[in-house]
Amino acid sequence: MEILDKINSPDDLRALSLGETERLADELRDFLVEKVSQNGGHLASNLGAVELTIALHRVYNTERDRIVFDVGHQSYVHKILTGRRDEFDSLRRFGGLSGFPKPSESEHDAFIAGHASNSVSVALGMARARTLLGGDYDVAAVIGDGALSGGLAYEGLSNAGASGERMVVILNDNEMSISPNVGGVSRLLSRLRVRSGYLDFKRSYRRVMRRFPKLYSFNHRVKEAVKRLFIPDNTFSEMGFYSLGPVDGHDIKQLESALRMARDFDRPVLLHVKTRKGKGYPLAEADPAVYHGVSPFDPKIGVKKGGDGFSDVFGSELSRLARDDERIVAITAAMASGTGLAPFSREFPERFFDVGIAEGHAAAMAAGLAKQGMTPVFAVYSCFLQRAYDMLIHDIALQRLHVVLGVDRAGLVGSDGETHHGVFDVSYLRSVPYMTVLCPASFAELRTMLDMAVHDIKLPVALRYPRGGEGRYKGDSSLETATALTDGGDVAIIVYGPMTNEAFDAADILREKGVGARVIKVNIINPLPVSRIAQLCAPCRAALVAEDVCAHGSVGEELRGELAQPVKLLNLGHGVVTHGSVRELLHSLCLDGEGIAAAAETLLSEVPDGKDET
Amino acid sequence: MEILDKINSPDDLRALSLGETERLADELRDFLVEKVSQNGGHLASNLGAVELTIALHRVYNTERDRIVFDVGHQSYVHKILTGRRDEFDSLRRFGGLSGFPKPSESEHDAFIAGHASNSVSVALGMARARTLLGGDYDVAAVIGDGALSGGLAYEGLSNAGASGERMVVILNDNEMSISPNVGGVSRLLSRLRVRSGYLDFKRSYRRVMRRFPKLYSFNHRVKEAVKRLFIPDNTFSEMGFYSLGPVDGHDIKQLESALRMARDFDRPVLLHVKTRKGKGYPLAEADPAVYHGVSPFDPKIGVKKGGDGFSDVFGSELSRLARDDERIVAITAAMASGTGLAPFSREFPERFFDVGIAEGHAAAMAAGLAKQGMTPVFAVYSCFLQRAYDMLIHDIALQRLHVVLGVDRAGLVGSDGETHHGVFDVSYLRSVPYMTVLCPASFAELRTMLDMAVHDIKLPVALRYPRGGEGRYKGDSSLETATALTDGGDVAIIVYGPMTNEAFDAADILREKGVGARVIKVNIINPLPVSRIAQLCAPCRAALVAEDVCAHGSVGEELRGELAQPVKLLNLGHGVVTHGSVRELLHSLCLDGEGIAAAAETLLSEVPDGKDET
Repeated sequence: MEILDKINSPDDLRALSLGETERLADELRDFLVEKVSQNGGHLASNLGAVELTIALHRVYNTERDRIVFDVGHQSYVHKILTGRRDEFDSLRRFGGLSGFPKPSESEHDAFIAGHASNSVSVALGMARARTLLGGDYDVAAVIGDGALSGGLAYEGLSNAGASGERMVVILNDNEMSISPNVGGVSRLLSRLRVRSGYLDFKRSYRRVMRRFPKLYSFNHRVKEAVKRLFIPDNTFSEMGFYSLGPVDGHDIKQLESALRMARDFDRPVLLHVKTRKGKGYPLAEADPAVYHGVSPFDPKIGVKKGGDGFSDVFGSELSRLARDDERIVAITAAMASGTGLAPFSREFPERFFDVGIAEGHAAAMAAGLAKQGMTPVFAVYSCFLQRAYDMLIHDIALQRLHVVLGVDRAGLVGSDGETHHGVFDVSYLRSVPYMTVLCPASFAELRTMLDMAVHDIKLPVALRYPRGGEGRYKGDSSLETATALTDGGDVAIIVYGPMTNEAFDAADILREKGVGARVIKVNIINPLPVSRIAQLCAPCRAALVAEDVCAHGSVGEELRGELAQPVKLLNLGHGVVTHGSVRELLHSLCLDGEGIAAAAETLLSEVPDGKDET
Repeated sequence: MEILDKINSPDDLRALSLGETERLADELRDFLVEKVSQNGGHLASNLGAVELTIALHRVYNTERDRIVFDVGHQSYVHKILTGRRDEFDSLRRFGGLSGFPKPSESEHDAFIAGHASNSVSVALGMARARTLLGGDYDVAAVIGDGALSGGLAYEGLSNAGASGERMVVILNDNEMSISPNVGGVSRLLSRLRVRSGYLDFKRSYRRVMRRFPKLYSFNHRVKEAVKRLFIPDNTFSEMGFYSLGPVDGHDIKQLESALRMARDFDRPVLLHVKTRKGKGYPLAEADPAVYHGVSPFDPKIGVKKGGDGFSDVFGSELSRLARDDERIVAITAAMASGTGLAPFSREFPERFFDVGIAEGHAAAMAAGLAKQGMTPVFAVYSCFLQRAYDMLIHDIALQRLHVVLGVDRAGLVGSDGETHHGVFDVSYLRSVPYMTVLCPASFAELRTMLDMAVHDIKLPVALRYPRGGEGRYKGDSSLETATALTDGGDVAIIVYGPMTNEAFDAADILREKGVGARVIKVNIINPLPVSRIAQLCAPCRAALVAEDVCAHGSVGEELRGELAQPVKLLNLGHGVVTHGSVRELLHSLCLDGEGIAAAAETLLSEVPDGKDET
């Protein structure tokens, strides 16, 4: 790393010759593959953004100028070039660098990122602040073509275009999803030319299409529609943008000159940059979806399929149910693989809908499907379902429609950190009228509860399940609303979902100390089976409710007023939790077995033991 | 009403000659003006949709076909023509017809409506269900040009276009917002011609522009950008739609033939219809914004400005603050008038942003403004802020940005009913990290608390205040987190915001019965001043928490576990509440003074009075 080792700030980068920047790009790719293969993280998108990021830092000064990265998993090179190279080993680790831009980590990070399609709106706000306060900095948003499928991006673009504000929107268009008929691109205002090989793209695109014909085909059609909307002719121009590009996103010289031109206009500019996801690492170029986010792997061999997790069990069970029930359809918002629906998409291509990054649309479309007699199942990460909160209430719940939500990545998710933890869904789902919320803690329970959700419950119903695989609890208590899994008589530990495993650990620790803990597992957290739980708690003189979700609207908040015993709540408070392994996070939050046991002992020490009074 | 009186179902309508339908249109306009001027309701949009609705019912059979109205306040003619003419006097009244489409009211109402931009997504879901289950009905969405500014519409359109499903999207384009430079319209595929007078429009548009120069100018530019995006050339075609129009929306013959053509295509069709908001009632044509939603008025004189409400006080106080603080900017999502910001928009045109129906963008843009040193104030109805829930968490709260939310129409709103009540915000706002929630109950408190929110609180902060004016409570206790307003010692009645008035009424009723009620008014409901409230409650042997919001995540749910006394919660349960006057609704829900007093008596009868024990 001859050049990279000397880059300690963007100033060093700006001093390089063009030839040196090109060698730097190669070194950055080696660095990325080495580090991400060791620690896991987002790979393909960062490999595709190497030259773009170098050029951005040679044209903009991020100590002053504001670059808003959309989604933000393409920010690794930015971090490496802005003084965080030596800390890069700590990326996504507990106490280390965040995997996303984070202003509290560096002045070079303009804004938080994680959820898609917000960058243009945020950048417009920044540009307006700059203009109103007479600042002299520049503002740019970097947004991928995938994020353009979100309605928020469209709201931002139509407002930014109409605003006349000096700002640049950089469309990072991965060749992956460019379709053959985007030839109209060449009619854009700028005559900058594309070098990248059209035939190469076409070959890799066909390879992907062969492997996942349905998975890609509809999503691809949505992206095409979006692309056709924005790229040909001068649609961005119609919205009020001066439109530049396309520029070869792997040609630093061309990028620099286009960025300079875009930056210096006195109005909104759209710069269209074409990049290749996974660029420079053949395995990732061949299969960028697999190398989007990875666990540690051997860079010579490539990523191997891990063991099954809750998502896979969800997907395969849904396929099983769909074989016997033609009314079942599955919906995803650009997360077919992450939510375990890829096999479903291959088996039932006509009943599978990938709508792009459009959770609100997914929920409203599900409502339309349900109203006309289908059984839509929308699988979505807890943190992204926040985008559809209004549609859950307005389109689904007010009409008591039978829509099934597979709320994946519920609870703490680990290394993606604060923007990705699923810690608000218990609160927001329980506020949705008529919403039943089921909490499987094992694969067996997920299967049984999905069957119940699809066939037995005729109202809006959500299953919330965690990222990853099951823990020590592997039972199936689905037929009970709540159940006691151990018979201790001193303290009740009330849990649901994967916290059941922590409760078992706590009960073990307490047992060794002579304290009897009764693990009470709740299966339906809305409506909450209050009297059943009270009955199960009856023998205990105190109760703890342990949840990995925010405090307000939690199960504990409701239960506390309903139980006869003193009740202690263990939860995440405001719900903002850093990144790290789930185990480290639970431990630091005193929500693992050890923390729960300690809280139980403290609680019991404050409560009369009943023996003195009899 | 010679013809209208004979129309008892769409069958009767389909039997009319073209000439008769034209006379029917005139009669319907007279009927609308007469009824809406008597009872209040949405006028201008319904006057504009008379011929379109007649034509829809002659082409589609809504017993079988599904017509999804976007927003839905243009559905009056639809209701009149589908057997609800004689009940029309009960519109928006307690126990009467809803002011919006409602499937539980009639099989002719395909879907619920109230929140904008969902119709294409819902219609796509219905079309897919039809195709998958082999149904033989047609599906259409009717969406106004305003609703096109919402990102959800764009998500729906790009998915519907890509789907290839047989469905029609009818763009009801009010001439009001068509700008002179939309000449490209004529290049659309169809060559159907527009008759409506371009000069008339231009004149009325200029008249409006003179009155509210800023109010209309940016919002107008956004709409123009949206319009430019969709209308010229064949952008809808690029998205996968077959594009028809523009059609004169007041020419029934032309409409019928265009609708038939659109319906019979075997793919997604976009039909562009041009209508005039307020058509046929000169006062509404001249000032459609004023006649959008009206209270009862004399149709010969027109609408008079009512007394000031919380929204007006909010707007004028914000203007006052902005005179001394150039960092303050105001944001609205197409509700400048409703949120009381029209005067602000005239006084500070450079610091006022109407973003269109785009609450998510408004919140994300506010975050960008705040990050760069401005103090953005986003005024928005409680029910529509649901659309921005994710942006409140992700873009604003995680970075602890100082964004002020003016949450208007919080609590029960009255005749708009279940889609419009602001009954979820206490739950969803309290789940947002670091969010302070202030609850003014009087104009004086709104002024003081807005000043606090703008100048003292440096975190995300929301003020929630009701629709309409203040009640009997006119004090200002803003400097206390919670305060006791009466000194009764039997039962504590804990309230916030306008429920303070109901608590006073309850205390009066109880006093006459010899029961001492202590009205405890909470001013900050997040974070909740728990120990202060407990202290204030101390003399009482029982407590009631009375709220006009949903149960889960409510203040009562948190307080119940924190107070020493037995606590009874009065709230809206699941939060689904019908339409009617706020007074009727509170009474029916046992949340008015009478209901609260009765609950207090019951509660006290179940609680030991303490005298026996001493």
